[in-house]
Amino acid sequence: MSENRVRDLLSQVSDGSLSIEAALEKFKVYPFEDLSFARVDSHRELRCGFPEVIFCAGKTPEEVAQISERILNHSDKLLATRANEKHFQAAKKVAPTAEFHERCGCITVKPESGLETVGGVLIVSAGTSDMPVAEEARVTAEIMGSHVETVYDAGVAGIHRLLGQTERIREANAIVVVAGMEGALASVVGGLADVPVIAVPTSVGYGASFAGIAPLLTMLNSCAAGVSVVNIDNGFGGGYLAAMINRRTRSSQ
Amino acid sequence: MSENRVRDLLSQVSDGSLSIEAALEKFKVYPFEDLSFARVDSHRELRCGFPEVIFCAGKTPEEVAQISERILNHSDKLLATRANEKHFQAAKKVAPTAEFHERCGCITVKPESGLETVGGVLIVSAGTSDMPVAEEARVTAEIMGSHVETVYDAGVAGIHRLLGQTERIREANAIVVVAGMEGALASVVGGLADVPVIAVPTSVGYGASFAGIAPLLTMLNSCAAGVSVVNIDNGFGGGYLAAMINRRTRSSQ
Amino acid sequence: MSENRVRDLLSQVSDGSLSIEAALEKFKVYPFEDLSFARVDSHRELRCGFPEVIFCAGKTPEEVAQISERILNHSDKLLATRANEKHFQAAKKVAPTAEFHERCGCITVKPESGLETVGGVLIVSAGTSDMPVAEEARVTAEIMGSHVETVYDAGVAGIHRLLGQTERIREANAIVVVAGMEGALASVVGGLADVPVIAVPTSVGYGASFAGIAPLLTMLNSCAAGVSVVNIDNGFGGGYLAAMINRRTRSSQ
Amino acid sequence: MSENRVRDLLSQVSDGSLSIEAALEKFKVYPFEDLSFARVDSHRELRCGFPEVIFCAGKTPEEVAQISERILNHSDKLLATRANEKHFQAAKKVAPTAEFHERCGCITVKPESGLETVGGVLIVSAGTSDMPVAEEARVTAEIMGSHVETVYDAGVAGIHRLLGQTERIREANAIVVVAGMEGALASVVGGLADVPVIAVPTSVGYGASFAGIAPLLTMLNSCAAGVSVVNIDNGFGGGYLAAMINRRTRSSQ
Amino acid sequence: MSENRVRDLLSQVSDGSLSIEAALEKFKVYPFEDLSFARVDSHRELRCGFPEVIFCAGKTPEEVAQISERILNHSDKLLATRANEKHFQAAKKVAPTAEFHERCGCITVKPESGLETVGGVLIVSAGTSDMPVAEEARVTAEIMGSHVETVYDAGVAGIHRLLGQTERIREANAIVVVAGMEGALASVVGGLADVPVIAVPTSVGYGASFAGIAPLLTMLNSCAAGVSVVNIDNGFGGGYLAAMINRRTRSSQ
Amino acid sequence: MSENRVRDLLSQVSDGSLSIEAALEKFKVYPFEDLSFARVDSHRELRCGFPEVIFCAGKTPEEVAQISERILNHSDKLLATRANEKHFQAAKKVAPTAEFHERCGCITVKPESGLETVGGVLIVSAGTSDMPVAEEARVTAEIMGSHVETVYDAGVAGIHRLLGQTERIREANAIVVVAGMEGALASVVGGLADVPVIAVPTSVGYGASFAGIAPLLTMLNSCAAGVSVVNIDNGFGGGYLAAMINRRTRSSQ
Amino acid sequence: MSENRVRDLLSQVSDGSLSIEAALEKFKVYPFEDLSFARVDSHRELRCGFPEVIFCAGKTPEEVAQISERILNHSDKLLATRANEKHFQAAKKVAPTAEFHERCGCITVKPESGLETVGGVLIVSAGTSDMPVAEEARVTAEIMGSHVETVYDAGVAGIHRLLGQTERIREANAIVVVAGMEGALASVVGGLADVPVIAVPTSVGYGASFAGIAPLLTMLNSCAAGVSVVNIDNGFGGGYLAAMINRRTRSSQ
Amino acid sequence: MSENRVRDLLSQVSDGSLSIEAALEKFKVYPFEDLSFARVDSHRELRCGFPEVIFCAGKTPEEVAQISERILNHSDKLLATRANEKHFQAAKKVAPTAEFHERCGCITVKPESGLETVGGVLIVSAGTSDMPVAEEARVTAEIMGSHVETVYDAGVAGIHRLLGQTERIREANAIVVVAGMEGALASVVGGLADVPVIAVPTSVGYGASFAGIAPLLTMLNSCAAGVSVVNIDNGFGGGYLAAMINRRTRSSQ
Repeated sequence: MSENRVRDLLSQVSDGSLSIEAALEKFKVYPFEDLSFARVDSHRELRCGFPEVIFCAGKTPEEVAQISERILNHSDKLLATRANEKHFQAAKKVAPTAEFHERCGCITVKPESGLETVGGVLIVSAGTSDMPVAEEARVTAEIMGSHVETVYDAGVAGIHRLLGQTERIREANAIVVVAGMEGALASVVGGLADVPVIAVPTSVGYGASFAGIAPLLTMLNSCAAGVSVVNIDNGFGGGYLAAMINRRTRSSQ
Repeated sequence: MSENRVRDLLSQVSDGSLSIEAALEKFKVYPFEDLSFARVDSHRELRCGFPEVIFCAGKTPEEVAQISERILNHSDKLLATRANEKHFQAAKKVAPTAEFHERCGCITVKPESGLETVGGVLIVSAGTSDMPVAEEARVTAEIMGSHVETVYDAGVAGIHRLLGQTERIREANAIVVVAGMEGALASVVGGLADVPVIAVPTSVGYGASFAGIAPLLTMLNSCAAGVSVVNIDNGFGGGYLAAMINRRTRSSQ
Repeated sequence: MSENRVRDLLSQVSDGSLSIEAALEKFKVYPFEDLSFARVDSHRELRCGFPEVIFCAGKTPEEVAQISERILNHSDKLLATRANEKHFQAAKKVAPTAEFHERCGCITVKPESGLETVGGVLIVSAGTSDMPVAEEARVTAEIMGSHVETVYDAGVAGIHRLLGQTERIREANAIVVVAGMEGALASVVGGLADVPVIAVPTSVGYGASFAGIAPLLTMLNSCAAGVSVVNIDNGFGGGYLAAMINRRTRSSQ
Repeated sequence: MSENRVRDLLSQVSDGSLSIEAALEKFKVYPFEDLSFARVDSHRELRCGFPEVIFCAGKTPEEVAQISERILNHSDKLLATRANEKHFQAAKKVAPTAEFHERCGCITVKPESGLETVGGVLIVSAGTSDMPVAEEARVTAEIMGSHVETVYDAGVAGIHRLLGQTERIREANAIVVVAGMEGALASVVGGLADVPVIAVPTSVGYGASFAGIAPLLTMLNSCAAGVSVVNIDNGFGGGYLAAMINRRTRSSQ
Repeated sequence: MSENRVRDLLSQVSDGSLSIEAALEKFKVYPFEDLSFARVDSHRELRCGFPEVIFCAGKTPEEVAQISERILNHSDKLLATRANEKHFQAAKKVAPTAEFHERCGCITVKPESGLETVGGVLIVSAGTSDMPVAEEARVTAEIMGSHVETVYDAGVAGIHRLLGQTERIREANAIVVVAGMEGALASVVGGLADVPVIAVPTSVGYGASFAGIAPLLTMLNSCAAGVSVVNIDNGFGGGYLAAMINRRTRSSQ
Repeated sequence: MSENRVRDLLSQVSDGSLSIEAALEKFKVYPFEDLSFARVDSHRELRCGFPEVIFCAGKTPEEVAQISERILNHSDKLLATRANEKHFQAAKKVAPTAEFHERCGCITVKPESGLETVGGVLIVSAGTSDMPVAEEARVTAEIMGSHVETVYDAGVAGIHRLLGQTERIREANAIVVVAGMEGALASVVGGLADVPVIAVPTSVGYGASFAGIAPLLTMLNSCAAGVSVVNIDNGFGGGYLAAMINRRTRSSQ
Repeated sequence: MSENRVRDLLSQVSDGSLSIEAALEKFKVYPFEDLSFARVDSHRELRCGFPEVIFCAGKTPEEVAQISERILNHSDKLLATRANEKHFQAAKKVAPTAEFHERCGCITVKPESGLETVGGVLIVSAGTSDMPVAEEARVTAEIMGSHVETVYDAGVAGIHRLLGQTERIREANAIVVVAGMEGALASVVGGLADVPVIAVPTSVGYGASFAGIAPLLTMLNSCAAGVSVVNIDNGFGGGYLAAMINRRTRSSQ
Repeated sequence: MSENRVRDLLSQVSDGSLSIEAALEKFKVYPFEDLSFARVDSHRELRCGFPEVIFCAGKTPEEVAQISERILNHSDKLLATRANEKHFQAAKKVAPTAEFHERCGCITVKPESGLETVGGVLIVSAGTSDMPVAEEARVTAEIMGSHVETVYDAGVAGIHRLLGQTERIREANAIVVVAGMEGALASVVGGLADVPVIAVPTSVGYGASFAGIAPLLTMLNSCAAGVSVVNIDNGFGGGYLAAMINRRTRSSQ
């Protein structure tokens, strides 16, 4: 049901050529089609507080530039993930203030007035090799307006390093735990925290880590309540969800 | 957006208290909610030519009886799968003409005037142990109005038994191939036929058949074009799709 | 380092037989042992706002009764999951007001003053077979003080049923999506919602659902941001996390 | 049993040196061998309405050119899949009108009189990364004589985009759904359509998509009847089957 | 092409109403159908030297009895596998001399003149729990006419027990190795023998033996040439193949 | 080469009928056969300090009793694992002092003079459900002469409970860590200890623990050096290895 | 027990300084050590009728050349598998008559007098992409002295091509079936043949063929008796076993 | 709880402004925070007798150089694994005496006074392709102060090569068994030895070895007691654990 079709029906109701009940019937028999004129994109932005995110893998630099331009027409912020140097160069042409976060392959554009961040998201990672994923989470949560702190290199084999951070764990509104190999970090943090913990397994490791299956299973089986899991290497997903929770948390916490 | 809400809007348009453009805007901002009054069930039946099917596993006999009664209020046919004797006894109370197909656990109610079947669906199965799944496909396709023929016990290890049926394979509008163990039958039939072949892997077998994974993979990798696959032991799915194709096939075929 | 050991050290500092710096050195070399006298349990309850939950599977009725009694000594609420009728009978002896939620195997004890619930958790499930898991989530979230609404039987194959609930999806503070078979419901709800969606895959299904692996993978790969996943059939985990998020959400949302 | 052997037997029957019953016995004891003189190739073409398709992966450009030439000797159409630029250059030498569909790696030769297409195949894909597979399905269905329409980039996370296409979904004779990541699109389309839906999982995604296993399982477990599945990334298989169904569908549909 | 059809054609050739070349053409266009009257069963027995084997799992005692009777009409030997006591009692009614091999669930009927066995098949098994599978292999090879020797309980953890049997390993014409758990026995025997070794993995074990996957993989990866593998727990398959090889081995070996 | 054969050769050497060099050649060409008279069993006992252990699963009570009797003829200790009440009753008849450890299904016979235990093995387990496996490890290590201490119910979600045991972790000669679900305990203990840690994954858990695969992978990927793994639920294996290490550790440790 | 040690013992027996029984005891207590002087290599060649085969993958050209030279010192035949052009050039320097079989990466050296081949091995493969593996089987069986025939490109989707070869299938002493994708060919050939069929799954295929797992499972589950399986892509293993069986088959077959 | 905080509390106790019991309470309520001033690194070295090991994969040469420098400030030994030539060149600048073990990618720095090694670790490997992993184990065990012997190329298919080493197997304090393909070597060595055997599966092999899964499962299922397993290709883990056991073994062994 196109916009024109709806306008027609309404005109007929308006001029009396169609009864209200008859018009009602018309609407009933087209349950879905009247969506075709929905202002989808602007709706989503209003609702989620953040414009569409560009997943650059498999897109040409030109495509990334075009989508960036379209988003920046009605937004003062931009996030593109899984980008490389070429994607960045293309994006820079349409967005001269774009920044490239090389370690995690993210492109961001911040508002001219600077980025205001609130609350507190904590990102904990197990080893230095997990940093690209952890950084993707950090950049994502920040551009979405969250104040972010990080505790990197806090694997469970040296549990004291983690325990020394207990206070920061207690103060966060949401925690992202990034870990490969055996992924036990999520359970330990989950046991110390009483806020949502989003676990991000990484494909870091070798042999029986099976490209992230081992930490994924570990995290899904975590005996600590309050822990949930996103896809392997999905730092963006972890940061996005943490920022969403953080943004909505009562300030009194 | 409830039915009342739409009626209100239409009334306001009708009496001029709301302009057409303003009404249009109202509709635009509620993209989905106007579905809440859709007459879902009757729509589906008209569209698909067959009422809802009852999956009995995990339902009590009483629940099956109640759903059966509701369906038979506006339909003269009924199909319930994965039923046991108790489900049947309960269904019989609300539908005295119900029949129980014990081998495949199906309950059917046919129209009083008898079941008209057209076209041709062929069901080929590999071994006697695959029969429950094959029968579920047969009963499903028949109640949906397809004329069904069967070739059971035609495993590839005795390929001549299958080859002797070439003519029937050529004459069908759609073929369901049901096989466990190594599942090679689908490829062989697919090579002989030039109509859609729906492959149904079964959990029949032991050891490395892994409850149906072996024939499932075999069938997905079939080198014969025109073969597609449904879930392990899903005789209903195979029969349903075959009947759907058969019903729509040009009679000249 | 036992409590007595610490007391000794402090005594020596007090009477001057040990210098402050020397005492400091003593503490440094025993990084962990001073935990042995920590008042673990009371800490946890204060922190999390909810006492320990009893996982009954593998415990005798007597064990469940004893743990229940101990918890109720310092709490007016109780939750026990994966319980059977026998566990309930035993629990009832020590907690006469205990209720048994048969469908999901949960035992609850509510405060005498009644259960106050706030905010809004929405639980959406795909089919009737998913109800035990969905109910475990509901009971858990409620006993933890969340107002819960439910939309059951909203599988994606009949997408209109789900779309009719868009308003409720928009109003929740956190959503638990419970689905077996193909688990696509989490993505669809995630696309409609702008609050955290906790996906709970269930072992409902047959054949290639592999006891929950299929919906688990579907949910982990969800293209909708804001979706995270807990273990297969872990309704408790989903309800717990949703309640935790709900409890902390700003009322203005 | 060679052709000569059969001729001998018939001669002996003809001249009376062998009785009919004795000849009959001779045939009986050679169950398979009499196939050795079957005119295999021409038979197949007549039967299936389409010549052999060339799977280029693992073949040299020269081999592809030679097979192309042989096929075009008795056909005015050609399809080669999984081809690269070098395969195309070689094919062009023997078939100057050959076209290269770069995105999906297909080579086609159309009849001089142009390609007549009938009916309607709809191809729906989830994301831009799925396009190579979707295009392979489109090119295949078209060269086999089907009129094809496409709805690309209609992932379930933005369900409204898909719902806006409901009318086209209703009008198709067969639908190919191409999706990676979580693959939920097949279920949603299957719930809207009442024609056969062929689901093609793709290896698009990362982490727990396991190179296509996640969408494959999702699709096999689809709760929407009428959905069947082909191999991961097998756009050709999906397009071939859709065209086969479309070609045979009654025009009145 | 039915028998009658062939007789008709031959009659026409015989009475001159059909030329030889025309008849030849008729045969050519029905490549497979002339198989429909093939005397399948008797052919197979002549060829393989052994009548059909009954796989009892999933068959009723009556079905087993009927098939047994039919086989014994034209054979003096019978083998039925995966049988239980009830199958045996039913079989005994039609074959009073039937024997039941309880440990492996096999029923055999031997020729009245006694069973002649030749050559040498050696069956080696790892532990006492593997005996049911090993016995199925033994009974199968014996009824097929092979002289069988056994070395049971010769696991690799006590390698000397196996080494003490080197001479018998050297003298066999074919060896069946039956092992669960880690399945290393096949490689060790394969390293000592210079005759075909058929490895039968068993589902014996627990934990990471995954119901036979561990020994299956071990055996497939055996670094000893001359080792091949059959399905998990397929003692029949191992014994059958060993007997087939033994029967055909030159006596001078 | 039988014992008699060796005696013959030696006799010929003794009486001069065979030269030393010729006898040497004879020995060379029979590399393995001379093992057939080795006194296998007594050798093993001397070597390992412990008689053969009986794995009762799949053995009849009578078989267990017979083997027990044979072992006790030349040993004053006995261990039988995976035993049930019936196995125990049968064993008790031949060994009146036999004890049954019901929780882990072990039967032990201790020396009349009592069991001397030395050194220190520590067994740490995650939850009460892991106790049967932990107890199997404890009983095994004790009967093999190790002094055993246990820390049960020390899951990582409540890390303080474990940290309070640091001193005992430091004092052990070998540690067995028994954990199901996510199995993270092994890494945490491995990080605190500087002695060998043997990790025993258990099949405790549900959903994505996949009967022990999740903790198995976690433990194999442990980032703490000094951790090794045995089969799922193999408490015996863990206890045996720990006792072997403990027995051989320098007392000064 | 070194050679010298044995000589010493024999000397003592010879000169009477050691009694026969005492010497016997000495041998008994050293069950394995007396193997250290075994002439391992020459034994193996005599036994197996073929020298060691060189697996070139992971070896340098120089290493391959050195091993080749050593083997050719006492043999007039050589087989090296998984070789590349560089391995061949190096081998050619020490063996000027070496041939390179490029398609399958094999190097062979034949006796100067030419290669005598006997009996009959048949190699059947499904598609052209399976040829490298099929050729490895052919080259292996030939160099081991078997007369080899081949039927390539006989996939089950065009079953008539295979059926036309029935006579050759009946005449072979052993058959190697090489197939990727769905691997159904092994069952079909196994159903036609009454000789050992060795199935070699290949990693040819894509998507759900999972690099050979699909045909591997198909072949392990083959319902045709007499079929056994070797590792994925292990053409050498298939050819070796077929040649071993062929060499030992009675000529009358 | 910072160091300053503790000092404050102690001062107050010292000057009497805080009672001992009150101070005790203060410590109790901060269970973990007092760890923040622990001298983590030096503790670990004292405890484990070996400084931190550098895992070079994923680190830049500069990072490896910096960490090396820091470690060598308080240690005279260094071990870096998974290093390449560039890592080595960078390390050499800060540690001129560094050596590069090319085959296994290890960098070591030995004490100027030379490396003292004691006891006995035996490393047994199956094939030449397993050598990189075996060498990683050897280099690790040696730098940790163990005397190491090696038996390479001792696969079970030629069991005599292994049996000839029985004496060395008996004399070791700990054995590392490195094997890919079918991994049976661990069981055979475990059956011969009465000391701890650490099994290291390798990713060597092809097809159904699945990059090390096959030998991993074999080793986990080993029927020889005393065998435990580390991650696939984890030579370091095997060598580290063996050295740890060896270092602590009583010299009388």
